[in-house]
Amino acid sequence: MSKSREYKHDRGDAGEFLGEREIIEIIRSRLNMMTDLPVPFGDDVAAINIDKGRVAVLKTDMLVGCTDMPRGMSFWQAARKAVVMNVSDFAAKGVQPAVLLTSLGLPRGIMRKDVDEIARGLNAGAREYGAYIVGGDTNEAPDLVISISLFGIADCKTLMLRGGAQVGDIVAVTGFFGKTAAGLRLLMDGFMVSKELREVLLNAVCMPQARLREGLALGKSGAVSASIDSSDGLAWSLHELARMSGVGFVIESVPVAEEVRRFAEFNGLDPLELALYGGEEYELVVTVKPKRWVEAKTVVEAMGGCLLPIGKATRDRQVLLNVDGKKGVIEPRGWEHFKSKSTSMS
Amino acid sequence: MSKSREYKHDRGDAGEFLGEREIIEIIRSRLNMMTDLPVPFGDDVAAINIDKGRVAVLKTDMLVGCTDMPRGMSFWQAARKAVVMNVSDFAAKGVQPAVLLTSLGLPRGIMRKDVDEIARGLNAGAREYGAYIVGGDTNEAPDLVISISLFGIADCKTLMLRGGAQVGDIVAVTGFFGKTAAGLRLLMDGFMVSKELREVLLNAVCMPQARLREGLALGKSGAVSASIDSSDGLAWSLHELARMSGVGFVIESVPVAEEVRRFAEFNGLDPLELALYGGEEYELVVTVKPKRWVEAKTVVEAMGGCLLPIGKATRDRQVLLNVDGKKGVIEPRGWEHFKSKSTSMS
Repeated sequence: MSKSREYKHDRGDAGEFLGEREIIEIIRSRLNMMTDLPVPFGDDVAAINIDKGRVAVLKTDMLVGCTDMPRGMSFWQAARKAVVMNVSDFAAKGVQPAVLLTSLGLPRGIMRKDVDEIARGLNAGAREYGAYIVGGDTNEAPDLVISISLFGIADCKTLMLRGGAQVGDIVAVTGFFGKTAAGLRLLMDGFMVSKELREVLLNAVCMPQARLREGLALGKSGAVSASIDSSDGLAWSLHELARMSGVGFVIESVPVAEEVRRFAEFNGLDPLELALYGGEEYELVVTVKPKRWVEAKTVVEAMGGCLLPIGKATRDRQVLLNVDGKKGVIEPRGWEHFKSKSTSMS
Repeated sequence: MSKSREYKHDRGDAGEFLGEREIIEIIRSRLNMMTDLPVPFGDDVAAINIDKGRVAVLKTDMLVGCTDMPRGMSFWQAARKAVVMNVSDFAAKGVQPAVLLTSLGLPRGIMRKDVDEIARGLNAGAREYGAYIVGGDTNEAPDLVISISLFGIADCKTLMLRGGAQVGDIVAVTGFFGKTAAGLRLLMDGFMVSKELREVLLNAVCMPQARLREGLALGKSGAVSASIDSSDGLAWSLHELARMSGVGFVIESVPVAEEVRRFAEFNGLDPLELALYGGEEYELVVTVKPKRWVEAKTVVEAMGGCLLPIGKATRDRQVLLNVDGKKGVIEPRGWEHFKSKSTSMS
């Protein structure tokens, strides 16, 4: 294989590299936009109308070895994770994935057993969420690349978009935060923890779960006004929901995982920082009409999940923290490609 | 960005690296197969039934800088080509692409003007074939990766599969072959040619065209019994059609582009070799029921294209050459990732 083309670097006007969101903005500005899109460009998934009331839902996301696969993650886990991160976006929209395609970039000379692991991981991820792999292709690349395309058909009425939150709605999440951020810190900076804690935190990194059952139940209930997954971090997700809905939030409780509290205490870290500004965590962040709260909570619990209220949507367009009398601003930051420190340990 | 993970190499039982088709076989063996697929696994596209008579058609393919982007190809051209190679598979099935998603891997520090070029190339490729880009994502990667997912809806009856050729059917192609192979040889090995010839051959490499209008017309006509595109080379495509249909072919004429004859003569190369065993060329290779031949030819010509008969389907399952009294076997080889010499010059 010939060596990679050399790329000239551009640190932009501010002397920094172009960030992921800046790149997306450049790309978006160059596209002719399709009209009549049932889901706005930039939401978690794309969709087009196929007939009265039904939409085809599409999503693509890519896992790259050197940035998305920390040391200690097996090929099986990486392949499964590539599926999970796509399924999570379907979950956030309330859509069941039907089939997926996999486009693989593999280094020349990859071992048979590694290919086998990747294939089994892809299949396991798909089957875990009721989908099938129906095609794909294989390419030579300098690093592992797993690009997944997900497809499903949904009833328009069950779609949960980012942009529907209204003043007074309850903000809620489907789980506790910070384990992935703690697990990555553990992998990168070598903190000391108990064996048991280590296992829990690394499991969060290597075996993420998409909240598909919860998302499908919420979509069907019609109780949700806006929804996103937390793959770029809780703080970032809140800002996205707020921005797309034209509201603000006051967050009165941040559900930090118990293991994260212990990890943070032991290592002198801020548990709130880990819970708010992490990423690669696949909870759902939703807003619920107050009158429908009990129903929303009930349908999620019926699926074996939980729905935790964390705050309220406000007219004031800021995202504020007000926990135990501690007031502050939740910053619009989280995981960003090209800017964030790579998660890779290799 | 941290350096790439190191991959252990496996040269397989035969002392060679795993080839693309071997890798695909390993992957396929590990997947749970969905039943009732309207298009068999391994055809140019995947599809699932959406309602009576209609199918959702999906395709994904990836362009990787170091293997698929020869020096001299601009970012704009690479991005457009990534779209064209996917559209070509839709063309071969007779399906109009509606929308596409783009999953990009970009090196950290990529320049604003390069991102801009990529975005404009993607949009140009999509619009050229009547499709829109409706979503995607951006990732950090050690080399340029453009993964495209294409989506469209088709009438079941217009789908042209690889596996329908019958003994006696006419084999036909939509154009002349060898320009891309000659152009790549020109780029890699530095042959001497006239400026005008150089321009034609490099244009074939950098500005490929998908035969979408031809494919749509043929699909609608119902005259075609089997179809594939020639992206892995004419020889390989013929073998695939033969294998999937359970027939053989006798090829009585190989349409070699006039420019390729001149290039080959000037440089002491075999024009047939360039035309048969190239790749990255996006003509359609189809079989037509003899009684429908005139109709097939007419509908393609009405679209401004051409349909050239090159041989016949036979009971004997070989793919044979019989041109001007020269008999031989057409080998099942063509472009294959992991095995073929990389096209990159960087």
